[in-house]
Amino acid sequence: MHSADPFLFQLFLIFVWAKLCGEVFERLRLPAVLGEILAGIIIGPYGARLVVPSDSIYAVAGIGAIFLLFTVGLETRPKDLIQVGQMSLYVALAGITVPFIFGFSYMLMARHTPAEATFVAAAMVATSVGITARVLDDLHLLQTRPARIILGAAVFDDILGMILLGVVVGLVTTAGASKWVQLVVTAVEAVGFALVMIFYAPRVVRRMEPGLERMSTRDAPLVIALAICLGLSFAAAKIGISAIIGAFFAGLAFAEYSPRWNLGPRVFAINEFLAPFFFFSMGARLNIGIFDRRFVISAIVISILAFVSKLVGCGLPVLNQGWRTAAKVGMGMVPRGEVGLIVALAGLQAGVISERAYALVIFMTGATTLVAPSLIKMVFREDVRTAAALATADGESEPPPQSAQMR
Amino acid sequence: MHSADPFLFQLFLIFVWAKLCGEVFERLRLPAVLGEILAGIIIGPYGARLVVPSDSIYAVAGIGAIFLLFTVGLETRPKDLIQVGQMSLYVALAGITVPFIFGFSYMLMARHTPAEATFVAAAMVATSVGITARVLDDLHLLQTRPARIILGAAVFDDILGMILLGVVVGLVTTAGASKWVQLVVTAVEAVGFALVMIFYAPRVVRRMEPGLERMSTRDAPLVIALAICLGLSFAAAKIGISAIIGAFFAGLAFAEYSPRWNLGPRVFAINEFLAPFFFFSMGARLNIGIFDRRFVISAIVISILAFVSKLVGCGLPVLNQGWRTAAKVGMGMVPRGEVGLIVALAGLQAGVISERAYALVIFMTGATTLVAPSLIKMVFREDVRTAAALATADGESEPPPQSAQMR
Repeated sequence: MHSADPFLFQLFLIFVWAKLCGEVFERLRLPAVLGEILAGIIIGPYGARLVVPSDSIYAVAGIGAIFLLFTVGLETRPKDLIQVGQMSLYVALAGITVPFIFGFSYMLMARHTPAEATFVAAAMVATSVGITARVLDDLHLLQTRPARIILGAAVFDDILGMILLGVVVGLVTTAGASKWVQLVVTAVEAVGFALVMIFYAPRVVRRMEPGLERMSTRDAPLVIALAICLGLSFAAAKIGISAIIGAFFAGLAFAEYSPRWNLGPRVFAINEFLAPFFFFSMGARLNIGIFDRRFVISAIVISILAFVSKLVGCGLPVLNQGWRTAAKVGMGMVPRGEVGLIVALAGLQAGVISERAYALVIFMTGATTLVAPSLIKMVFREDVRTAAALATADGESEPPPQSAQMR
Repeated sequence: MHSADPFLFQLFLIFVWAKLCGEVFERLRLPAVLGEILAGIIIGPYGARLVVPSDSIYAVAGIGAIFLLFTVGLETRPKDLIQVGQMSLYVALAGITVPFIFGFSYMLMARHTPAEATFVAAAMVATSVGITARVLDDLHLLQTRPARIILGAAVFDDILGMILLGVVVGLVTTAGASKWVQLVVTAVEAVGFALVMIFYAPRVVRRMEPGLERMSTRDAPLVIALAICLGLSFAAAKIGISAIIGAFFAGLAFAEYSPRWNLGPRVFAINEFLAPFFFFSMGARLNIGIFDRRFVISAIVISILAFVSKLVGCGLPVLNQGWRTAAKVGMGMVPRGEVGLIVALAGLQAGVISERAYALVIFMTGATTLVAPSLIKMVFREDVRTAAALATADGESEPPPQSAQMR
């Protein structure tokens, strides 16, 4: 095992340092994920250069991304979609379209390539509802109507965001001429993949159950779930959409059976070990040398666009319920998270976006996440008073359903 | 994520194929671990060449070895040692000394280098009690006196085996002249490490508890346990004993608090994902091209020596309780497992043992494990009849405490 020394050292240092920074952020009531990214910026190759992650560390980080999205999928139950209804679907759709158009237009105007504009715009799309859910849970407001619309929309948002990512990755990584044909092919593949995983796969999983219980391998359901997660990740990468999309939909397929087979805590544990390497690597790839005046202006503009476009996009479909509700729903959908970060990383690795555009996305994600909690509290202030009166009768509220995203 | 394709493919193929072979072995009532090693032999670089593991796969396999030993440590409670008493200690000590001397002498006679002889002898030392525990559990004999001696001795065996491995690795990887000084230094280090981890570390863990509960990070106990596991692995490698020894003793320190913090199932889950890569890699490294007549004879001799030396070594200390008890205890200690395999791998990676010696150890491990179950059933036959009479009153017996080893 002596040859493993430098690897082992990086493994230890990255894990401990990332978790430490995450803990500090948690204590400041900020998302741990941002702390873990910052950990990578500080001691990574562009920072103090204490750790220059080896290829093996990046490989471990890649597995971390897969398990991260697998966890998000496991917590997204397709069944819930039917219950939350059309309103959430409209909120999700408008909340995806508006930021995409805003982001794409600005990036083109700022003279980025269309491919880069597409990637950055796609990274602006996915809401990470974990932050919102935690804030509303703290305020005991998870049962209010706006909260329910937000949580429902977040489920659609995840799925639609994944389909969009699939299309974008497929589109950008193919050559020029057949681009529009390819767009249609990839779109059909991505939508087909999503539909199969939402409507057909859970039934397959249900039918597998008796077989699983006959298997001799210990923890057969966990082993099968992991195998399918790896298999669909590979399949997704193979048909030209991103590997993590496969992992996400694998999680979706097992979401219903997750509590019964106790998959959640165990997949979480794997995630708990691997995710810090992913976020650390994300920070380690951020070249802070490019932070000049022009970059900062771009980053602020992108962040404001990301903020306003979600607020407006998600607010519009519920405007008929009064502007207060619109503001609540819109604000609740503002925080971005892992999915956007992963989109940016996919673009960087495929060589279609520059270090600059990659840094823009990380900045935007951090900005929306840092700004949102206090604003969410502000727009929900009136409900806190109403809830305070009811709280004595009601007691505890439900836990946030998406706690793995943006802790 | 496109650059991750070949890695992702290997990840998927190795996991599924190893688990499949493991399942087949389980159905044949053979240890899954042997199936996973065979999986690597069949499609690995020396077999069908379907998978030539990349450096990143070997890195993942290395993390797998660390978690494997961490799991073994978590299941080895130092507290139990005090209860099982001196008899088990004597059984363990003799069961380590005799196979080491037999193995070392034979290897020297067969004209291997002293370093190689030391490594192979050390790999013959560690009992893997999982198989025995499962056989005895099936027969409802875990509560008999010989079974209790075996299970107790296995705990000492693990710890003593780890200390021996530490000394051997330290000894072999240093230069010639100062060898004997180095031997003493490493022995003191290894024993000191073991004593600290057995007697002092659990108290530190106990004192950490209130602090852990104040931490903001989710799953703080798991995160801290993982951090300490990685840290001690690195520390162990740093002072010149093997990394996995650090992982084992880290597990030992948390063993007492494992049920309370629910560490077991979660660390198991990580292990469930990573271990197949370790065993597969183990098989992938086995050069079956060297299997000539001379090798087979050597392998058979080593296997017989491994068998006889444990039977005699572990039987002797309990001979005063009749030869039947001696046969039972001796036979129960025969199966070898992960620890021996890891010793061989450490030797191969450090370049001190040849592919030939490495293959000898894998052969010996397989042989002792395959032969033991039916022989254990045979020597315990009389107890089955006695137990059958009592079983109706007694009901269920305890689960095997070492189920992670050699499933």
